[in-house]
Amino acid sequence: WKGEFFPAIPKIKYEGPNSKNQLAFKYYNSEEEILGKKMKDWMRFSVAFWHTFRGTGGDPFGAPTKYWPWEDGTNSLAMAKRRMRANFEFLDKLGVEFWCFHDRDIAPDGETLEETNRNLDEVVTLAKELQQGSKIHLLWGTAQLFFHPRYMHGAATSPEVGVYAYAASQVRKAMEVTHYLGGENYVFWGGREGYQSLLNTDMERELDHMARFLEAAVKYKKKIGFNGTLLIEPKPQEPTKHQYDWDAATAANFLRKYGLIGEFKLNIECNHATLSGHSCHHELETARLNGLLGNIDANTGDPQTGWDTDQFMTDIAEATLVMLSVIKNGGLAPGGFNFDAKLRRESTDVEDLFIAHISGMDTLARGLRNAAKLIEDGSLAELVRKRYQSFDTEIGAQIEAGKADFEFLEKKAMEWGEPKVPSGKQELSEMIFQSAL
Amino acid sequence: WKGEFFPAIPKIKYEGPNSKNQLAFKYYNSEEEILGKKMKDWMRFSVAFWHTFRGTGGDPFGAPTKYWPWEDGTNSLAMAKRRMRANFEFLDKLGVEFWCFHDRDIAPDGETLEETNRNLDEVVTLAKELQQGSKIHLLWGTAQLFFHPRYMHGAATSPEVGVYAYAASQVRKAMEVTHYLGGENYVFWGGREGYQSLLNTDMERELDHMARFLEAAVKYKKKIGFNGTLLIEPKPQEPTKHQYDWDAATAANFLRKYGLIGEFKLNIECNHATLSGHSCHHELETARLNGLLGNIDANTGDPQTGWDTDQFMTDIAEATLVMLSVIKNGGLAPGGFNFDAKLRRESTDVEDLFIAHISGMDTLARGLRNAAKLIEDGSLAELVRKRYQSFDTEIGAQIEAGKADFEFLEKKAMEWGEPKVPSGKQELSEMIFQSAL
Amino acid sequence: WKGEFFPAIPKIKYEGPNSKNQLAFKYYNSEEEILGKKMKDWMRFSVAFWHTFRGTGGDPFGAPTKYWPWEDGTNSLAMAKRRMRANFEFLDKLGVEFWCFHDRDIAPDGETLEETNRNLDEVVTLAKELQQGSKIHLLWGTAQLFFHPRYMHGAATSPEVGVYAYAASQVRKAMEVTHYLGGENYVFWGGREGYQSLLNTDMERELDHMARFLEAAVKYKKKIGFNGTLLIEPKPQEPTKHQYDWDAATAANFLRKYGLIGEFKLNIECNHATLSGHSCHHELETARLNGLLGNIDANTGDPQTGWDTDQFMTDIAEATLVMLSVIKNGGLAPGGFNFDAKLRRESTDVEDLFIAHISGMDTLARGLRNAAKLIEDGSLAELVRKRYQSFDTEIGAQIEAGKADFEFLEKKAMEWGEPKVPSGKQELSEMIFQSAL
Amino acid sequence: WKGEFFPAIPKIKYEGPNSKNQLAFKYYNSEEEILGKKMKDWMRFSVAFWHTFRGTGGDPFGAPTKYWPWEDGTNSLAMAKRRMRANFEFLDKLGVEFWCFHDRDIAPDGETLEETNRNLDEVVTLAKELQQGSKIHLLWGTAQLFFHPRYMHGAATSPEVGVYAYAASQVRKAMEVTHYLGGENYVFWGGREGYQSLLNTDMERELDHMARFLEAAVKYKKKIGFNGTLLIEPKPQEPTKHQYDWDAATAANFLRKYGLIGEFKLNIECNHATLSGHSCHHELETARLNGLLGNIDANTGDPQTGWDTDQFMTDIAEATLVMLSVIKNGGLAPGGFNFDAKLRRESTDVEDLFIAHISGMDTLARGLRNAAKLIEDGSLAELVRKRYQSFDTEIGAQIEAGKADFEFLEKKAMEWGEPKVPSGKQELSEMIFQSAL
Repeated sequence: WKGEFFPAIPKIKYEGPNSKNQLAFKYYNSEEEILGKKMKDWMRFSVAFWHTFRGTGGDPFGAPTKYWPWEDGTNSLAMAKRRMRANFEFLDKLGVEFWCFHDRDIAPDGETLEETNRNLDEVVTLAKELQQGSKIHLLWGTAQLFFHPRYMHGAATSPEVGVYAYAASQVRKAMEVTHYLGGENYVFWGGREGYQSLLNTDMERELDHMARFLEAAVKYKKKIGFNGTLLIEPKPQEPTKHQYDWDAATAANFLRKYGLIGEFKLNIECNHATLSGHSCHHELETARLNGLLGNIDANTGDPQTGWDTDQFMTDIAEATLVMLSVIKNGGLAPGGFNFDAKLRRESTDVEDLFIAHISGMDTLARGLRNAAKLIEDGSLAELVRKRYQSFDTEIGAQIEAGKADFEFLEKKAMEWGEPKVPSGKQELSEMIFQSAL
Repeated sequence: WKGEFFPAIPKIKYEGPNSKNQLAFKYYNSEEEILGKKMKDWMRFSVAFWHTFRGTGGDPFGAPTKYWPWEDGTNSLAMAKRRMRANFEFLDKLGVEFWCFHDRDIAPDGETLEETNRNLDEVVTLAKELQQGSKIHLLWGTAQLFFHPRYMHGAATSPEVGVYAYAASQVRKAMEVTHYLGGENYVFWGGREGYQSLLNTDMERELDHMARFLEAAVKYKKKIGFNGTLLIEPKPQEPTKHQYDWDAATAANFLRKYGLIGEFKLNIECNHATLSGHSCHHELETARLNGLLGNIDANTGDPQTGWDTDQFMTDIAEATLVMLSVIKNGGLAPGGFNFDAKLRRESTDVEDLFIAHISGMDTLARGLRNAAKLIEDGSLAELVRKRYQSFDTEIGAQIEAGKADFEFLEKKAMEWGEPKVPSGKQELSEMIFQSAL
Repeated sequence: WKGEFFPAIPKIKYEGPNSKNQLAFKYYNSEEEILGKKMKDWMRFSVAFWHTFRGTGGDPFGAPTKYWPWEDGTNSLAMAKRRMRANFEFLDKLGVEFWCFHDRDIAPDGETLEETNRNLDEVVTLAKELQQGSKIHLLWGTAQLFFHPRYMHGAATSPEVGVYAYAASQVRKAMEVTHYLGGENYVFWGGREGYQSLLNTDMERELDHMARFLEAAVKYKKKIGFNGTLLIEPKPQEPTKHQYDWDAATAANFLRKYGLIGEFKLNIECNHATLSGHSCHHELETARLNGLLGNIDANTGDPQTGWDTDQFMTDIAEATLVMLSVIKNGGLAPGGFNFDAKLRRESTDVEDLFIAHISGMDTLARGLRNAAKLIEDGSLAELVRKRYQSFDTEIGAQIEAGKADFEFLEKKAMEWGEPKVPSGKQELSEMIFQSAL
Repeated sequence: WKGEFFPAIPKIKYEGPNSKNQLAFKYYNSEEEILGKKMKDWMRFSVAFWHTFRGTGGDPFGAPTKYWPWEDGTNSLAMAKRRMRANFEFLDKLGVEFWCFHDRDIAPDGETLEETNRNLDEVVTLAKELQQGSKIHLLWGTAQLFFHPRYMHGAATSPEVGVYAYAASQVRKAMEVTHYLGGENYVFWGGREGYQSLLNTDMERELDHMARFLEAAVKYKKKIGFNGTLLIEPKPQEPTKHQYDWDAATAANFLRKYGLIGEFKLNIECNHATLSGHSCHHELETARLNGLLGNIDANTGDPQTGWDTDQFMTDIAEATLVMLSVIKNGGLAPGGFNFDAKLRRESTDVEDLFIAHISGMDTLARGLRNAAKLIEDGSLAELVRKRYQSFDTEIGAQIEAGKADFEFLEKKAMEWGEPKVPSGKQELSEMIFQSAL
């Protein structure tokens, strides 16, 4: 493949909200400062190699639909390298400075683990070269421990010791190459770490194995001097009926139970949040309050659909809530916003790849602008502050310091009589919120 | 009210599976031994005072429908006492040895907290007398911290310090009377400890307050020498959009985060489990593996309904799974099975109260019999044991002891080559399970 | 009650998008023309008497929370009249020209049906007087056939013939007074026309009864010369497990099966739409394409909540989709947008009633402005038109006329070879849609 | 491939409930009479070729896992024929007398439509031969109009006229070969007849096209003298966000709207029922009461999972409800129970294919036995009959005959006073139902 991969696509530029150009940003202006930081530093957008370059459009009821011109129909090493070059051109034209990968989507399996690792090394070497001549960085790497049939019962939680060992070797290698590429994080998504039925499962033993596995990962990370953040990505289910990292609180409980709480953060995915019965905002706040908000897989689901649709986010209200959490977190670095989102199966033009990313980036950029407006306006924060002001008192302070026992509180309750309870002003808070959109 | 409350109802007896008598047990035979323990000691059934004696049949779209003959239409103290006597007759006729209550459903609110407490004391004194002349015990007590408008924003998590204090005084009193009645547990269900909207909520501060509140409860418990178990009852939502004790894992994470993990166990309710997206069996196993399975609120939901229907359990497959967990837990004592279940709004005969409880008790008794059959047969346990046998090896032991690092495992993986992965035999496990029903 | 009911509330005015005044419209400018029609004529907003004046804040777990100053704690006839006057002041200050009611929320039940009817007549007479001195009209009336215990098994579908007759008499009267008040529609919401369990239900007989009942309503309407539209309001469930008018398609099938299709239209409620697994937009389009879109109950649900939350709509994307359907329908008249929405239980200030309605009206007004922008821009419609242009051909016309049989089509398929299938451009359509928000 | 395909599997026999043999029936005794009909004539079980012989175990996150010994890794015509022979051996050993297929799973696509049709003819010729030497019949055939990328926007509802024509030619051929094989029904499952987004969809035009397509199918059926039933299979969504045949009522409305109601029946799939928010029993009853119950796709879903899991039914309560509907329908013939169910991805032994089918057949057979018990006992039917007996009166008859107008009913209501409303006895009906399991 000679020349450009995307000859028809110009470098995507910011043209402002009135532009009708589908290949321009209307809200994302990378160098513009918002709340004292450049937009690009708030966002740290990343392209997910697997969806953008390996997504086929196949689904459980249908064959692949994507036929990108640079693909030759093989999964050869040569093809893997060509694809990696396409990735860097895509990043450059889109103006995105980070990318993410699973080991197996950037390089083909070999006959043996050794050969597989050699394949990976070749592609990674190329990726490193491509990074060096650019502003592009690796946000994170990960090992794909769910696609191959060997992982059908799980990887770290497989009942087969041979699979556990295989998975360990794969993660070891993926961490090594992530480190080599200067990756800023490393992700664990336990797609098959869970169960299809409790009838044939020893959940206790599986959870213990998962903990042992993560402990070994922590040790290896330290050994090789990798300083990136280790991230667990919660998801409630799919492909398994129940995934052990169900949601942020479940993952936090696991980390605390096994003494791993200081070693990991979470990668919150919005579509996973809604599948687990929470809003994305809730999951972000839960992660943040547990000190665990590390990265966001920026996508969204269909509210009427019970599976992971991995759509690009287009809801500006949701994006504004997401950005309120990110701002409270002081940003996401060394994490970022990874577009774990895919074209609809029916979107088959090369330009659709750009349109989808532009739309997702603009949605989040608009969320940032709206969140900044809300913060600068201050009335929403003031409404919340006032609601709790009865605790900004001497007795409130005693309670918050753990110094108010039940007898003391009962005395106060009797002294005070029936408490007055003001309106919660939810509709007013919604009105203020909407006014910023 | 003179004489019997339920004159038309005989003492409910065990008549075996062929009985067509709707007022007899077909499966629950209290003194019969199953797996070395009397059925009644496995089950420790309890009647929930609130549903059975205070359930009105009202719903968000309809007025009350229950007009029990012993009710006089008031919420007087005299009526409260009469109702308590009805409760003990009900328990006696049904052959259930435990009961549970919320403070406010057994005694009316007074004008002041002092008067309210006096009302409670009067009823509790009567209850104690009634207990003494019987085999009946208190399984647990709790404070109703959700019905009164003062609790509309929460109790321990209310933004109003006065409400926090009021709630503390109410819990103090409820723990005191639970202790006085020989209660074996004390429950916290945080019906309104949660949020309707994150826009007007300071979730961090609310969670901290909730922790302070529970710490104070622990201190008070120790101070008065109450040795019962403190139980948290998870529920995902309803009445709030999000309840902080969402599910077992969320509650466990909260307890661990705030250093309360040794002081509480969980009261798992099956209908709450399914509302949170889990099977009841899953929640029981999650609680058990976290060392937190303390009590079961025995009910079930409608699988097509998105709110808490609190139905009596009638699914024998579900009951069998529940009992498998209970048996693995070595029983539930000092907890038990509390029927947090209510008659359908349209069931308005006094006999329906008995029919519903008999049906629920028989369903769980049948579950126990089936679980025992499965355990005695052994083939399901054997299927599971075999699935994990590759870990019953030297290398398996090393891994489980945390002594297998990634380099060692990689060496093994290369040595072993592609692992063999046997069938998971889910359909076979289902066939074995079904054969016991 | 003398003087104003809402002395602290001014007449609500349009102040434009930059206003920070919580008691002003930012988007709803009643007399402004959009797409050739005044905003107020597109919207035909209506206040729902039951939520706004009879909503108590009670929920299945909690007591009422609203204590409006004009309420005296009774359900007397005098109170009913006072409340009606408050309603008209509310409408006037809010600038809303329609209202809706259930018979039982505007007038109290009497001892007998005759007395109940007299009570209703008295209040209705007052309402008519209040209407006459104003611009205010009745959008629709309806009979409340779900609250009273007599309706616990349904009204038209109750197994009791006496309940069927009672319901008939209640609807007769409600239609009569709706006609008297110049109501432009009459609504049937079958809250309890459904089942809790199929085990004790004869669904066939119940559906037949429902059809007979609606036929009788049509006859009565014609007899009294009432020309308003009869509307059925679909809802999937709650309070019943299954409501017979599950969604728009189900209601349409019922109407067709029983030969009632020309006599009724549908009242689509957005929260009911999402509870039935559809988007509101889908239900509106389904109603519209079946020729049945008559009225909208303007509210929204919580996407993570499995029950009817009846919130005021605040999502501008949803509002824009709703307005796209309304515009395609040529408006809703003689129907309109009825705010079947309630304050959150925790919102207890009188001003919250205004804030909530203003927020809902502004959201829909913003939806109208956005929809007009999309229509005037034209690129979304053009994208759709182009997708189907292969049918704007001779063969397409033959197919659409039902003149292309399988053999002919096969001949064409063989002639043409493998068809080319272009991209669906979903992301582009989303980008265009978002740009109008 | 010489010799047997399943050498390790004996002919499956009935051994009764006490058998522990995993390769024997415990409840299904094909020749035994139940309620006057042989079990096999009630059930008319059918094996679904696509799941059993073409199911790969692949899922959206994982590669195929099944490697059946008779597969050579190709999709050649020779392989197709070998597979068909395996199918007949499977049917014979399992004792199932019907099978079902999609055109594309029994024969490979050729380069052209003509070649594809020739491939199909070759395999179908073999199937006919295999049928002739056996008791085996074709329950139904269908065309696979969802897998190939050409159908990504739908088949009959594709915006491309070429796709519409291609689909027509494919259905024509599939109907022809179904007729040739003596198929008793022909099925339409519109997997992609629906939309992913309303923004880029002209739903009205698509629905019209679908109607034209089905009209053409009816004409073709008559032309070739095919007397089998045409069946529409409702499903709410997946792969599309919204499928036009959402549920039984939606499909019925479509058929009525377009005047096709007499020409089609429905194929109800239990997993589709629950995905649409209904119980399977509800969908069966809805189909039955609309005169549309034609066939059942016998499977079940996971109650906690939002996608189609197509599991073999194992719930005996659900199976009993299903059989109650089937008995009320007088059986399903010329339809039957087709096992549209697949092995779990992790079940990879050949014997698992048998175990799964045996388990599904036994579950439904047990359902039949239980349903017969309930019918013979009669107390459940009696409970229902009594609930409605107030309509078995003169006035009830008048109402049911459409002769009772509102004025007459009002007169009666006033005469009768407040109606008495008895208990609905739901718990009792559940107790009776459970007693039969």
